[in-house]
Amino acid sequence: MKLRSVVLLAAMLMAGSTGFTQTTIIEDFKPSPFNQPFQAYPQVNSQGYARFRIYAPNADSVRVSLGLGGQGGTKLLKADSGYFIGTTAGPMDEGFHYYRVNVDGATFNDPGTGFFYGSQRWESGIEIPSKDQDMYALKDVPHGNMQHIIFPSKSTNTQRAAIVYTPPGYEKGNTKYPVLYLQHGWGENETSWAVQGKTNLIMDNMIASGRIKPFIVVMTYGMTNTGAPIGRRPAPPPPAAGTSATPPPAPPAGGGMGAPGVVATGITAGEITGVGAFQTVLLDELIPYIDAHFRTKADRDNRAMAGLSMGGFETHTITLAKPEVFGYWGLLSGGNYTPAQLEGKMKPKFIFISYGSKETRGAEGLPKVEADLKAAGYKVATYVSPGTAHEFQSWRRSLYEMAPSLFK
Amino acid sequence: MKLRSVVLLAAMLMAGSTGFTQTTIIEDFKPSPFNQPFQAYPQVNSQGYARFRIYAPNADSVRVSLGLGGQGGTKLLKADSGYFIGTTAGPMDEGFHYYRVNVDGATFNDPGTGFFYGSQRWESGIEIPSKDQDMYALKDVPHGNMQHIIFPSKSTNTQRAAIVYTPPGYEKGNTKYPVLYLQHGWGENETSWAVQGKTNLIMDNMIASGRIKPFIVVMTYGMTNTGAPIGRRPAPPPPAAGTSATPPPAPPAGGGMGAPGVVATGITAGEITGVGAFQTVLLDELIPYIDAHFRTKADRDNRAMAGLSMGGFETHTITLAKPEVFGYWGLLSGGNYTPAQLEGKMKPKFIFISYGSKETRGAEGLPKVEADLKAAGYKVATYVSPGTAHEFQSWRRSLYEMAPSLFK
Repeated sequence: MKLRSVVLLAAMLMAGSTGFTQTTIIEDFKPSPFNQPFQAYPQVNSQGYARFRIYAPNADSVRVSLGLGGQGGTKLLKADSGYFIGTTAGPMDEGFHYYRVNVDGATFNDPGTGFFYGSQRWESGIEIPSKDQDMYALKDVPHGNMQHIIFPSKSTNTQRAAIVYTPPGYEKGNTKYPVLYLQHGWGENETSWAVQGKTNLIMDNMIASGRIKPFIVVMTYGMTNTGAPIGRRPAPPPPAAGTSATPPPAPPAGGGMGAPGVVATGITAGEITGVGAFQTVLLDELIPYIDAHFRTKADRDNRAMAGLSMGGFETHTITLAKPEVFGYWGLLSGGNYTPAQLEGKMKPKFIFISYGSKETRGAEGLPKVEADLKAAGYKVATYVSPGTAHEFQSWRRSLYEMAPSLFK
Repeated sequence: MKLRSVVLLAAMLMAGSTGFTQTTIIEDFKPSPFNQPFQAYPQVNSQGYARFRIYAPNADSVRVSLGLGGQGGTKLLKADSGYFIGTTAGPMDEGFHYYRVNVDGATFNDPGTGFFYGSQRWESGIEIPSKDQDMYALKDVPHGNMQHIIFPSKSTNTQRAAIVYTPPGYEKGNTKYPVLYLQHGWGENETSWAVQGKTNLIMDNMIASGRIKPFIVVMTYGMTNTGAPIGRRPAPPPPAAGTSATPPPAPPAGGGMGAPGVVATGITAGEITGVGAFQTVLLDELIPYIDAHFRTKADRDNRAMAGLSMGGFETHTITLAKPEVFGYWGLLSGGNYTPAQLEGKMKPKFIFISYGSKETRGAEGLPKVEADLKAAGYKVATYVSPGTAHEFQSWRRSLYEMAPSLFK
């Protein structure tokens, strides 16, 4: 065999390409923790493989959108029982993943899982085991409450939704608490940090262990659902004869779908909302409502803002436009601050910036970002989540890493 | 024509049977308020017709489970665009309805709607306009908070979920409030009264109008998901070779699916839970937790229990077993009390019993039930919801009718 062929073959063997080498899949599959009651599938194993089983007795093809990148997800194979079954070709990253199911060209959710708002729709979701899942485990410790509130917004002429985490013990006495305003990403809503992010469980556990002193977390809808249709959905056809030509409805400001209380928003599909519109809601309407209805320390030193992805972009824009509002700023897979951007502005008490390790450009640039900010006199901490990408495990860990530095 | 034929024809014409007479469908369809953001379908019109549109370009048949009773739902017809479209053959009852979609024999949810827990799964749902929908409209009035709590349960060895409505103004001062414990029906969970029932919006509006004085509402998971599979789901096949034989997972005690925080329960599929198990959770674990963590008037005169359907059955059983715990008892499409059942027991301050008018046996029997109880010296109110059946509009209205008589 020519040397080139030997080298190529060796490389393929080492890369584990299908057909040459295969990791042995450990058959310790268990139902994903985010399944619906009574649903055995999908399942996950200790290595991070995901296995799907969907009943579609007369379908020709069923494919789930999870699987190795660039391979179009995982094609399931039909068994005689009418179930389509398949396992991802490789392990998934730790933590939470959105997905959907394609059945002969139609998009549906997997009846086995719960619903998770992302990509402008309620998606299916799966939870891959993680070495650090103890961080967000449901434990027998004192629990905070997740308060679903409705606040009025003159600027959008609507009643809007937010979820407010009040820490355990909040109901006792007259203590006032600092507040973290925590924003979701594009196509998500106020439930995304709460459910996918497991914010309350991470907070409960950090408080119980003494890692942090208690504070309030406010999660609202950041108006990051633009009207633009997402890639995979077909464009709606012109209304057929006999159907009404009503435009698509305004997306609610969150809530309603398995969360109590449908609230309306002034955002209509097709309207691209700028960060400015959200800035007005946050600064002029939500913060005053929170300060009036919760026992908050209502000053800059006790107010933080952080966000993931587009929520980080919003944080970046709003903190630089109004640096006097928040004392602590966090960007989670959501860009960087530079000394040039900060020059001449009221100085933040602390900056936190993080990425998943697989977000290579952000992660590899982070040491320089940190060094530059420190050299310019800013207090900053950065964090790279090992083995994760632009996904929720990076952000759960980032919340865990960032929280102890807030309000100090 | 013979007289008999003339009479028959006239009867058919008057009955409006298809083919002879047809109500003119008013083309004022609008997206259902319970749709997902950006989803124009399903739609509802002012008469209560529902219209569905589902994209399934390669399917042969798509049917939704809503439609005239006994007709197997509504079969949708395929258009060239790949969308299946159809309208119910007649109007639906006012208010909320669960449904699901059958695509060539497979069960999925309608991608157009949110998710609503009932029949032991997260279902699709649609909201039909109602003449009295102002009762639960989202208005610019002070809003209470829906607090998602987690409380420990020794008896089930789990952390359990409940949703606590605290009225507007709760955060101010040291006022203590009465508490209504409000239970859902079979196959539902703690989100069902919250979302389908619109409890917070009905409470907000009753308080704003002065119809009631504020009180707290506690909605927990009543352990009414038995392990028995429901009729329409196929029995799971034996595990195929290469898949694990893990039993179905324990249904969570609610939450997790679009509601913050997945909590576990000790209930495993297949285990039939008796009301006794729930009675222990409610009386020994939830009530003490609520009294310890919320400013409640913790005595019988300020504690009510009510439930819909199986939640009414639970209320009936628990109030008769422990009449000293609750002073106010409500059965909503959930059976009756009789003087014989109440004899010798601590007397309730007030009994409320209701049915939908289409629950003919319950509704028609109600005057006698009321008369018997009054004759035996009990304070009782009954209510029949006009034009509705065993469904949520009956129960929203019943909450509205019952509430002003509580804690008086």
